[in-house]
Amino acid sequence: MQDVHRRIVLKSRPKGYPELSDFELVETPIEDPGPGESLVRAHYLSLDPYMRGRMNDARSYVPPLAIGEVIVGGVVGEVVRTNTDASAVGDVVEGRLGWQEYGLARPDTVRKVPFPDIPESTALGILGMPGLTAYFSFLEIGKPVPGDTVVVSAASGAVGAVVGQIAKLNGCRVVGIAGSDEKIAYIKDELGFDEGINHRAAEDMGAALDDVCPDRIDVYFDNVGGPITDAVIPRLALRARVVICGQISQYNLEQPQTAPSVLRHLLINQARMEGFIVTSFQARFEEGRARLAQWVRDGKLKYKEDITDGIENAPEQFIELMRGHNFGKKLIRLYEPE
Amino acid sequence: MQDVHRRIVLKSRPKGYPELSDFELVETPIEDPGPGESLVRAHYLSLDPYMRGRMNDARSYVPPLAIGEVIVGGVVGEVVRTNTDASAVGDVVEGRLGWQEYGLARPDTVRKVPFPDIPESTALGILGMPGLTAYFSFLEIGKPVPGDTVVVSAASGAVGAVVGQIAKLNGCRVVGIAGSDEKIAYIKDELGFDEGINHRAAEDMGAALDDVCPDRIDVYFDNVGGPITDAVIPRLALRARVVICGQISQYNLEQPQTAPSVLRHLLINQARMEGFIVTSFQARFEEGRARLAQWVRDGKLKYKEDITDGIENAPEQFIELMRGHNFGKKLIRLYEPE
Repeated sequence: MQDVHRRIVLKSRPKGYPELSDFELVETPIEDPGPGESLVRAHYLSLDPYMRGRMNDARSYVPPLAIGEVIVGGVVGEVVRTNTDASAVGDVVEGRLGWQEYGLARPDTVRKVPFPDIPESTALGILGMPGLTAYFSFLEIGKPVPGDTVVVSAASGAVGAVVGQIAKLNGCRVVGIAGSDEKIAYIKDELGFDEGINHRAAEDMGAALDDVCPDRIDVYFDNVGGPITDAVIPRLALRARVVICGQISQYNLEQPQTAPSVLRHLLINQARMEGFIVTSFQARFEEGRARLAQWVRDGKLKYKEDITDGIENAPEQFIELMRGHNFGKKLIRLYEPE
Repeated sequence: MQDVHRRIVLKSRPKGYPELSDFELVETPIEDPGPGESLVRAHYLSLDPYMRGRMNDARSYVPPLAIGEVIVGGVVGEVVRTNTDASAVGDVVEGRLGWQEYGLARPDTVRKVPFPDIPESTALGILGMPGLTAYFSFLEIGKPVPGDTVVVSAASGAVGAVVGQIAKLNGCRVVGIAGSDEKIAYIKDELGFDEGINHRAAEDMGAALDDVCPDRIDVYFDNVGGPITDAVIPRLALRARVVICGQISQYNLEQPQTAPSVLRHLLINQARMEGFIVTSFQARFEEGRARLAQWVRDGKLKYKEDITDGIENAPEQFIELMRGHNFGKKLIRLYEPE
């Protein structure tokens, strides 16, 4: 086994959109696992929008990354050395080991990937954090009722695509918003969304929403914020639910955008808006994974992965993700076992 | 008994703040009650911020007033003629009879004022719609926990004053925001609020909030919207609850104000914001009234009324209310029985 491995650390805090120069690829010795630890060789890294927030030095639900620290992120890999009975060499595990080829894990920081019949990469996507986010936040905060009109932003993304499909399983009418005709064709033709709006092509988002939501909007699942959300909110139905899952349009702005207040619309519609972090439902993750896995096996949930090889490409691919240029769940493949 | 009475009708839809010329005082014959109806002589009219919304021709939770229609509004008065067994001459009743000296009532549009030991005017205030609004929305949406920091805007108003006092009964730390030093002295010295901020005197609302809310804000009860709310939202605590009860700062604007989006703050704090109309809790009004009445009798809930005599003064007093120049629950007294 090699002695050194590669990792990507935060070199400088991005101002606005991240640039390649904000990241540094460093070579460093592979550490020996200490007592109770194991060493994991990464197969896949997950790139997710929440990582952008960690790069700022601002209050959020977790502390910011330090300069020089390995970028946070979920990883699927295999145990190659172990000093704990909790994992055996060869186990495929998932955990937040960061953007590096090898990581040290403890039993409480990784979990064994539970479904050998489903590709392991899904542990970072539809059966991982994005899938669980979609499952719990849509069902518990969105509270769908059959017949509801559900609007999902970033509808072809790792979370949005799952939300839309679960909404269909719930008997809802589903409208997806995405940034290309190709994405719209995918969510309608492959995933079964009822309608789609390409927000880059729509001249007037409000009019486009009126066309496909004549009875207004019962659930809005928001991954993006900004002008798309500004167009949705005035079209909420009585007792609508807004799930705030992400605000990617705002993460790379140096000055926040301004817009008319949403409060009046919530008031007159007796509507609710709630932010959500998936770890709130940690106690129910096993339930969520089992349900999602069964739907995947039954062909009721489809997923799409956008995979690039090589850790050195993680920063560039993360920037692409920030610009909405991904098509499906963004992954970096470091090593593919035979 | 006289043959004619006076009423105030909507003459034109206000643009921005209402003006006296938007209202018309008309004299009209007193109608005879039909089968099942009774005739009620008004003692008090209630002036409430929600009435402003009815004067616009815009979608809201109820249809707008028509031009020429009597202004909506709650009334307490006495039955002077009756064609129904459901009410007897002399009964003191409350209902939405509008800005007029005499109104026709049916058993389903008025209710008998239930507490003869408490002044009847409270049926429009602390034991009426504003008190019930405070009771249900603060408890059911605000979900107070002892030790929470609760911030209330329009804190000396008909709803805010009740919210703050119920928050104290719940063991919360309560900060009120109001528009004069006199109001701040009242909420602190008379009602027992822990802190107060005079928003007209504060140079920097954010800094003023930081001073009195060092542990951030767990519940924000919003009656006003606009810049006060914009200063509160970035200071929400983890899992904060925002009750949207009113947005009076916005009701008289021809163009809505813009501000940075609240969604990011709700997301990172896993916070919830919900609009609320008191009639959602209609099935529990009796419970709410009984509880509020007992607190009033026990001296645990205090109230202040801002009373002006004469229906002809209702438009001017309503404009004062819109400008925040009321001090306590705004009432027009038409007639005081001996």
